[in-house]
Amino acid sequence: MLTIGPYQFQSRLLMGTGKFSSLEIQSRAVEESGAEILTFALRRLNLDNPREPHFLERLDLKRYRLLPNTAGAKTAEEAVRIARLARASGMCDMIKVEVIGNSHTLLPDPIATLEATRQLVEEGFIVLPYIGDDPILAKRLEEAGAHAVMPGASPIGSGQGILNPLYLTFIIREAKIPVIVDAGIGAPSDAALAMELGADGVLLNSAVAHAKNPVSMARGMRLAVEAGRLAHQSGRIPKKEAASASSPMEGLPT
Amino acid sequence: MLTIGPYQFQSRLLMGTGKFSSLEIQSRAVEESGAEILTFALRRLNLDNPREPHFLERLDLKRYRLLPNTAGAKTAEEAVRIARLARASGMCDMIKVEVIGNSHTLLPDPIATLEATRQLVEEGFIVLPYIGDDPILAKRLEEAGAHAVMPGASPIGSGQGILNPLYLTFIIREAKIPVIVDAGIGAPSDAALAMELGADGVLLNSAVAHAKNPVSMARGMRLAVEAGRLAHQSGRIPKKEAASASSPMEGLPT
Amino acid sequence: MLTIGPYQFQSRLLMGTGKFSSLEIQSRAVEESGAEILTFALRRLNLDNPREPHFLERLDLKRYRLLPNTAGAKTAEEAVRIARLARASGMCDMIKVEVIGNSHTLLPDPIATLEATRQLVEEGFIVLPYIGDDPILAKRLEEAGAHAVMPGASPIGSGQGILNPLYLTFIIREAKIPVIVDAGIGAPSDAALAMELGADGVLLNSAVAHAKNPVSMARGMRLAVEAGRLAHQSGRIPKKEAASASSPMEGLPT
Amino acid sequence: MLTIGPYQFQSRLLMGTGKFSSLEIQSRAVEESGAEILTFALRRLNLDNPREPHFLERLDLKRYRLLPNTAGAKTAEEAVRIARLARASGMCDMIKVEVIGNSHTLLPDPIATLEATRQLVEEGFIVLPYIGDDPILAKRLEEAGAHAVMPGASPIGSGQGILNPLYLTFIIREAKIPVIVDAGIGAPSDAALAMELGADGVLLNSAVAHAKNPVSMARGMRLAVEAGRLAHQSGRIPKKEAASASSPMEGLPT
Repeated sequence: MLTIGPYQFQSRLLMGTGKFSSLEIQSRAVEESGAEILTFALRRLNLDNPREPHFLERLDLKRYRLLPNTAGAKTAEEAVRIARLARASGMCDMIKVEVIGNSHTLLPDPIATLEATRQLVEEGFIVLPYIGDDPILAKRLEEAGAHAVMPGASPIGSGQGILNPLYLTFIIREAKIPVIVDAGIGAPSDAALAMELGADGVLLNSAVAHAKNPVSMARGMRLAVEAGRLAHQSGRIPKKEAASASSPMEGLPT
Repeated sequence: MLTIGPYQFQSRLLMGTGKFSSLEIQSRAVEESGAEILTFALRRLNLDNPREPHFLERLDLKRYRLLPNTAGAKTAEEAVRIARLARASGMCDMIKVEVIGNSHTLLPDPIATLEATRQLVEEGFIVLPYIGDDPILAKRLEEAGAHAVMPGASPIGSGQGILNPLYLTFIIREAKIPVIVDAGIGAPSDAALAMELGADGVLLNSAVAHAKNPVSMARGMRLAVEAGRLAHQSGRIPKKEAASASSPMEGLPT
Repeated sequence: MLTIGPYQFQSRLLMGTGKFSSLEIQSRAVEESGAEILTFALRRLNLDNPREPHFLERLDLKRYRLLPNTAGAKTAEEAVRIARLARASGMCDMIKVEVIGNSHTLLPDPIATLEATRQLVEEGFIVLPYIGDDPILAKRLEEAGAHAVMPGASPIGSGQGILNPLYLTFIIREAKIPVIVDAGIGAPSDAALAMELGADGVLLNSAVAHAKNPVSMARGMRLAVEAGRLAHQSGRIPKKEAASASSPMEGLPT
Repeated sequence: MLTIGPYQFQSRLLMGTGKFSSLEIQSRAVEESGAEILTFALRRLNLDNPREPHFLERLDLKRYRLLPNTAGAKTAEEAVRIARLARASGMCDMIKVEVIGNSHTLLPDPIATLEATRQLVEEGFIVLPYIGDDPILAKRLEEAGAHAVMPGASPIGSGQGILNPLYLTFIIREAKIPVIVDAGIGAPSDAALAMELGADGVLLNSAVAHAKNPVSMARGMRLAVEAGRLAHQSGRIPKKEAASASSPMEGLPT
């Protein structure tokens, strides 16, 4: 059971809803993923428009919990403003803080993310900040009252998988709040590895939405997250140079 | 559907039957894995003994196809002799050729493996040679009539996963026979990656048998193989430096 | 020529002075390294003691520029106080800001490091903050007036080399100030790679001080830094799947 | 001192002579590399032509030992024939056996390479077979009388560096003859790593010939080979998770 603030979830795979070629594909992929938490950029919604936004129309909103994000924000103030808008819309009191610090790499700004998190926690939000993979920043966010941390595996949309498993391990080991690996997942093996390292969940979007077949890829990701979770609980074998080695791998010169 | 010689299988996860702490655990893990092909070292059986060997007793042999291996052989001749014994026992006409070339690394002997494969093909066996990850050797074995090749991900029992995904990719791309990744798998992420690269199946043993909980790890491996297969069919996204990069990753200086 | 604030250096290898088994070995290793900048923890000096500290006695201080660091500081305030002590001692107006955020990993605190850097820049120091490998933080430090940034390759003293070459590349590509790779270097190949990626310099300590033969390892590091710098200037070949590939490596599925 | 058969060399960097844009650049790069052994494809020479081939004209042949290779051979027979031609030309009794098994990957044929090596050893050549990175094959070649083995780091001309440091380590650890890492080196960090792993030498060509500035890259490679050799002799520090870890790195889940 994944617990974030007051909410509980069976599924440990969170799905982004952007970048799909059609709403039909999107809803079928979301279905196959088994996700219970769906993220989306609030700026993609036209909140002034009385009509419910399209992608929400297609979903049975009783089955999902919405996690709007503050994509588009470049400062803590902008992120806070977007979060307030999201809550005012009545959709959810969960917010993914996303303050991008570079338009090419789309890596997040650690300072602004911490500021926005502090403010939003104070205002009573359930706050999930998206960060790089800095273990100390993750701890500072936890101390600031974040309800989960969402370290990136690699740059958003890059499909590179987990660039630095060691720092991710440090984050997981120290965290008393859930760790959701977010950004950069490219394939089921990446998602499985995140869970094997002990992550509490995985959030992904491009890897499914931009796959040639998003619907079957969504199913692959679902299975991989389950597989990785099982492995984490089952106690994997240590890595050894060879079966005959009496101790786990020592630092070979590479 | 995985086709090896005249046989067809739904499952793409092959299980080794050694190293389990008990027959009870073994049979439950095999069950959870969904495997239809079970490997075992013929030398572990006491063929002169009228009693059926223990681990076979526990299994419903109608549900599984047995793949005895020639473990213990250090030469082509020994491998051929063991294979003949296996067939004479009436268990199966499939044989995994395993000729170990080094007692520490347990890496296979490419020369003896090719020799034994040639001989056993000539004698009408269904031959699955276990090899390192040499793409040219894999092709020579195919030319010699092997029915599948079984490249190792890393040393037997090491749990190191896929040390050289490029050479494995070369083997898969060139092969007209099934490629079963064998040896070194440590976690579901490794098994998923093998399938994502296009392998036709994965064989593992220690990763399940030596896990703290072999039964749930077996289930994790089953899901991971399915996840990786789905991803291979679904067309994963290319790796890019960042989402904004217009082309897939180019050779950064590392 | 490496330029940091008002100072210029021929050597791009900076040496830490701690952890050596003897002052004799230390001074010989420093000599072999060709380093012109030496770092040390101010807390190792007994500033109240009228006697010059030992390791400084052995060195011809006209040949080296001292870069005291604030090791031991856990907050921005402590770092600032140590920096002021260092300057008051008359040794140098350069300071390496080091605020450790975790006593196991020894990874730096991004928030406190930025705060201390801002304060020390304002007070006229030449400031070199030690950070993790967050590209956005590196940019924020540059904007705060830092004279160089010192991203870690991996945890201090771990010898793991460069865990995340991509983020290091992002830092280097965006920086208008020198980038000195600091912490985690284990072998000359690591130092060479840092320079090949475009770093302006490398700082190391344990890899030399704890080598079996620190003096010859220091020479190896010196050559490696030169080799990597030459390679960066010489334009390395792109990575390709094979020589016959018409384009640089594209995102293979791993 | 590198000893191959009856010959001894100070330099541990072997240079290929192909692919340079001009003979002028070639000779200057060779000079900067410090190489004492030069390789070239015999087929590039026009042996029937009374004129000495161009690239040999430019070199002071007293300073170098020539190592012709059998590039172009696809079978053991062709390799043997080329080797005999090379010796008949009076250039050298050393021969690099190179039997390519795939025209895309340019990976060598293990079976044909062993056959050719056996034959050429019998005929009194000093034989250096180029192989993939199969540790058992390397041992079989040593048993066949090879005077050195030349495992590839990655495919010829790929610049990918060392794909499988573990198997290279196995080769080096077991070998009683020199191990020269050949093929795939892209940058000085790769060459340094090969030497740190304990290789006796490094052979490269494309990484220098196709660099933007081949002459300065040649110098970088020379320094890197020296740096890696020094590190191997100096006893590098073990890799640890963190400085505070009491034991070298154990098998983290990746």
